[in-house]
Amino acid sequence: MTLIKTLLPATALIALPTLGLAQEADVTPPNEEIGYIFTTFMFLVTGFLVMWMAAGFTMLEAGLVRQKNVTMQLTKNIALFSIAALMYYAIGYNLMYPGDGWSIDGVLGAFSIAAMEPVGLADTETDLTYASVGSDFFFQLMFCATTASIVSGTLAERIKLWPFLIFVVVLTGLIYPIQASWKWGGGFLDAAGFLDFAGSTVVHSVGGWAALAGALILGPRIGKYKDGRVIPIMGSNLPLATLGTFILWMGWFGFNGGSQLYMDTAGNVADISRIFANTNTAAAGGAIAALILTQLMYKKVDLTMVLNGALAGLVSITAEPLTPGLGAATLIGAVGGVIVVFAVPFLDRVKIDDVVGAIPVHLMAGIWGTIAVVLTNGDASLGTQLYSIVVVGAFTFVVTGVLWFVLKTVMGIRVSSEDEINGLDMAELGMEAYPEFSKS
Amino acid sequence: MTLIKTLLPATALIALPTLGLAQEADVTPPNEEIGYIFTTFMFLVTGFLVMWMAAGFTMLEAGLVRQKNVTMQLTKNIALFSIAALMYYAIGYNLMYPGDGWSIDGVLGAFSIAAMEPVGLADTETDLTYASVGSDFFFQLMFCATTASIVSGTLAERIKLWPFLIFVVVLTGLIYPIQASWKWGGGFLDAAGFLDFAGSTVVHSVGGWAALAGALILGPRIGKYKDGRVIPIMGSNLPLATLGTFILWMGWFGFNGGSQLYMDTAGNVADISRIFANTNTAAAGGAIAALILTQLMYKKVDLTMVLNGALAGLVSITAEPLTPGLGAATLIGAVGGVIVVFAVPFLDRVKIDDVVGAIPVHLMAGIWGTIAVVLTNGDASLGTQLYSIVVVGAFTFVVTGVLWFVLKTVMGIRVSSEDEINGLDMAELGMEAYPEFSKS
Amino acid sequence: MTLIKTLLPATALIALPTLGLAQEADVTPPNEEIGYIFTTFMFLVTGFLVMWMAAGFTMLEAGLVRQKNVTMQLTKNIALFSIAALMYYAIGYNLMYPGDGWSIDGVLGAFSIAAMEPVGLADTETDLTYASVGSDFFFQLMFCATTASIVSGTLAERIKLWPFLIFVVVLTGLIYPIQASWKWGGGFLDAAGFLDFAGSTVVHSVGGWAALAGALILGPRIGKYKDGRVIPIMGSNLPLATLGTFILWMGWFGFNGGSQLYMDTAGNVADISRIFANTNTAAAGGAIAALILTQLMYKKVDLTMVLNGALAGLVSITAEPLTPGLGAATLIGAVGGVIVVFAVPFLDRVKIDDVVGAIPVHLMAGIWGTIAVVLTNGDASLGTQLYSIVVVGAFTFVVTGVLWFVLKTVMGIRVSSEDEINGLDMAELGMEAYPEFSKS
Repeated sequence: MTLIKTLLPATALIALPTLGLAQEADVTPPNEEIGYIFTTFMFLVTGFLVMWMAAGFTMLEAGLVRQKNVTMQLTKNIALFSIAALMYYAIGYNLMYPGDGWSIDGVLGAFSIAAMEPVGLADTETDLTYASVGSDFFFQLMFCATTASIVSGTLAERIKLWPFLIFVVVLTGLIYPIQASWKWGGGFLDAAGFLDFAGSTVVHSVGGWAALAGALILGPRIGKYKDGRVIPIMGSNLPLATLGTFILWMGWFGFNGGSQLYMDTAGNVADISRIFANTNTAAAGGAIAALILTQLMYKKVDLTMVLNGALAGLVSITAEPLTPGLGAATLIGAVGGVIVVFAVPFLDRVKIDDVVGAIPVHLMAGIWGTIAVVLTNGDASLGTQLYSIVVVGAFTFVVTGVLWFVLKTVMGIRVSSEDEINGLDMAELGMEAYPEFSKS
Repeated sequence: MTLIKTLLPATALIALPTLGLAQEADVTPPNEEIGYIFTTFMFLVTGFLVMWMAAGFTMLEAGLVRQKNVTMQLTKNIALFSIAALMYYAIGYNLMYPGDGWSIDGVLGAFSIAAMEPVGLADTETDLTYASVGSDFFFQLMFCATTASIVSGTLAERIKLWPFLIFVVVLTGLIYPIQASWKWGGGFLDAAGFLDFAGSTVVHSVGGWAALAGALILGPRIGKYKDGRVIPIMGSNLPLATLGTFILWMGWFGFNGGSQLYMDTAGNVADISRIFANTNTAAAGGAIAALILTQLMYKKVDLTMVLNGALAGLVSITAEPLTPGLGAATLIGAVGGVIVVFAVPFLDRVKIDDVVGAIPVHLMAGIWGTIAVVLTNGDASLGTQLYSIVVVGAFTFVVTGVLWFVLKTVMGIRVSSEDEINGLDMAELGMEAYPEFSKS
Repeated sequence: MTLIKTLLPATALIALPTLGLAQEADVTPPNEEIGYIFTTFMFLVTGFLVMWMAAGFTMLEAGLVRQKNVTMQLTKNIALFSIAALMYYAIGYNLMYPGDGWSIDGVLGAFSIAAMEPVGLADTETDLTYASVGSDFFFQLMFCATTASIVSGTLAERIKLWPFLIFVVVLTGLIYPIQASWKWGGGFLDAAGFLDFAGSTVVHSVGGWAALAGALILGPRIGKYKDGRVIPIMGSNLPLATLGTFILWMGWFGFNGGSQLYMDTAGNVADISRIFANTNTAAAGGAIAALILTQLMYKKVDLTMVLNGALAGLVSITAEPLTPGLGAATLIGAVGGVIVVFAVPFLDRVKIDDVVGAIPVHLMAGIWGTIAVVLTNGDASLGTQLYSIVVVGAFTFVVTGVLWFVLKTVMGIRVSSEDEINGLDMAELGMEAYPEFSKS
């Protein structure tokens, strides 16, 4: 730019009325290649933040299960993330974006592996208006993996390893990409005007529905509901659960921020800033709501509710993290926190055993967040939001229900009572998470 | 740029002597909008790093308290971060930058909520010379939260939950922003020439003074000082404390690096690089100093001193992470480590019970770091540095002292002896951090 | 750019055939200063990710040793990272890049401290074609520290603190930089056409060889091999080990991605995207391979093998993360996972006691990864790859072997049998990692 500036007298800058253009939104990016670099790098940064959420789920769940099931929870989480990586590569990515993947051979064209641009963008006339395919794949993959992470917490402490992993194969290779294509692949929900910025419905409620279907078919843990009473089962390591929550909180900046999809203009980067700030304040709102509410209701603050309150705040703002102001974002998150405080005991009342509270956090707050879009985004229609929630929910609940049922019938999904009582770690893996610490 | 280059013969590049301009500092950014994107994105990245420090403090403190108080420490930390988010939004941000917030209605104008630019920077003539308000708010908020994080460690294992949280409300909504405005809001300390790049004084010593005032009014833990002897109370989980230190170390790159405030020119990004490298080496210097010193003094390396040594190194370089070379930065950090090794037993000698060593790390090394600015920055005046340390210290110590005293009088700030001995987790929260592990 | 665009009619854009240039790789960056900012910031981001790997190694190792040796492992890791920071500054950086450091005084010129550009790039005619020296130093330092991190795991639970730290001084100040200069400093291996993108050999195998030499001279832990049998010694905290693996996985995006060294063009950022995606899928491939293989071989999935499988996948792709497609990257990683599953029991069979599996992961998968370059990179020669593996291996193994031997002779490197049985924490440091938890 220096070069150009030296060619033009400073007065020319004043003389040209069109100069103001650069300061308005929706102008062409300053330079196509620069915009491409910005957006691509943004995907890489936000992508590694979302990848980090896999560690967050792992720590959250490892902290909230009993020590006899911790190794199993760790194993499931690293395995599911790895499976998601392979399935999304092999099938999911192109299935989710049929516009990119559909070939003249028709439907089967969508079933193709993901491919990146050649090294150095060599011998291509690359379109530089968006971002590199590799970065887009990397970013989108993490959303697919997140969906699977949500399921593992609910079903902890009683589900067998391999049926769960087979479920993950289908969820990440087919179920998630198919329904995601309806919105993010430019499908019929997108055409209908459904708004779900970063996936309160497309990611979180889908994980939640899959978890709910699994919980219903799997049944509660032994000893959880006895003689009409709910027996509290405490997590074995609350610092891990808290660490997991902070990791998720941090990773969510990538989850929501990267979903802006462009960082090539001042307007886009300013929007990503709004999203970061709103995401943070929604989490804070959810945590504070749960903090105050548990104090009022139980006379004692409940840390696990505060953690889940923060997460519910994050899920709630995910469908629309851009249009709210900070105050609205806080309130939207706070409602998420309130939902968690009431939904956790409600699920227990109907004897749905959700070990880590993933159904309240991801499904219920996900529904709330999807509805809440209409509060701040004038383009949203309540009818369309509800319709989309129902369509995605019905599809996911039915398909995953059938899948869980088939897995139950074919190979069994639940460990034996003896194994459950002894713990899955020794029974299924032969390895304790904390072998040297005496147990009470 | 390709376009332009094709219009100019290569020889023109050589012929134009003014071309060198771009390679010097303080030139106009290559393109205003590009500079805006760079700086804004830099705030988002460094901002999430500083947010991550909240997890660092949480893990550090959870690791350094006894297991019976771990849940409480976790609860306080996630709550204080959430409270800081809301208070800084509701009051702090505009109070800290009165230049932005003062309205014609006078002083009360500063008491207004934070507001971001509209979505897509629509219908504004946005000034593109800096960064988006959302990113600036996001980044600055994290500093406010850090100040509160510092306090919770010192007062652990004996302070009640709610008085502490009320203290945080006032600290993050009023005390921090008011004194921060004196320097960073362009107030009288800034006018006096006070230099505090990323807040050795404005953030760390303020947290330290608030912690000191609290520790004096709260008194030491039962059993800490008995019959003229200091009874060592060991942390329950040193891997957590070490993890917390690494998290803080990592987050500090954002803390110091982002405080450059601009990344729109080669000079600015090179400066941020200097800051990253200096921050890292100062931490290393502090850790090594504590490593060697504890070996020499006690014939055994003390891990908690090494951890606090690294943190003291980080605090020490925070007031001026830019101007030192790597050698000077190492030495400045090393002095911080030395301070910790001597200050921790000193505080015990005067019976100030600082559970995690936050006063040596954040207050004492913060003072040292603020003074050390004069060693490498020719613009610094020792007198002004000392004057500012005293002004900020006196203000914070007095105001927080009064606040602690009021809280003590009105609602009591300390749990009962019985609750303290049984642990705050069961007494105040009814929830254990590690319910399944037998206790020695 | 807006300015220019307004000066040229839109038709000119179509008329100029040379415009396509910007979309091809290896063109001049759009603007020199912008490219410099992009690349420098990329180094800072990828650099803090690699720094984070130090925390990953720490958690991995703390989780895989017995609780009586955890404090020692934590201490070694934070100390080695700090030592690496100082030694690489004092000697290593300029020794590794003699092209930058050699003065007219000859060889000794390479022994000079690292120096960064002046603040604000003032009074320099900075070359803006690469990145700031500070960012390059910051990034390269982290690789040096990684090499040292690899060693500490293998030798855990029996090596004394100070001889280990002295070893680290020499490793990070001399051994690593000297051999790294052969490839990355433009030395004879680079001239010979050796390809090692991010250091399967230069970093990982060097750490592995140093660990192997140490393990041989140090001998196995007491009780590990008894009466011809291998006694399994379980890690004390598998959530920590899993957390460490996730941290390393995350940090590796920086390790491999940053090694692209430039982010100033669309081609370069697209390449970094390829690298991120390939790195992720290779880790997934390694984890899945170990998951399936341990199920098949032992009828039970072995979590520690899955974790090491993921890490081996990461090491395997490190020598060439750019040229493979996603499928090839997955397979290259999977082979790494297979190697680990067979190499861990093999090492036990030959009574080499590697506490965390660092030799299979970093040395053996490192060799595999270095060879695998020839599978996807047409510029690689198998002969040169093998030659370089042997040269670097022989140098490192001999020099570190001599160093370990000297340390053993001069000061002893192994704790007494009594101390080893009681644990290094109490014997060497007088501090337990988990003082309050009863031990089985």
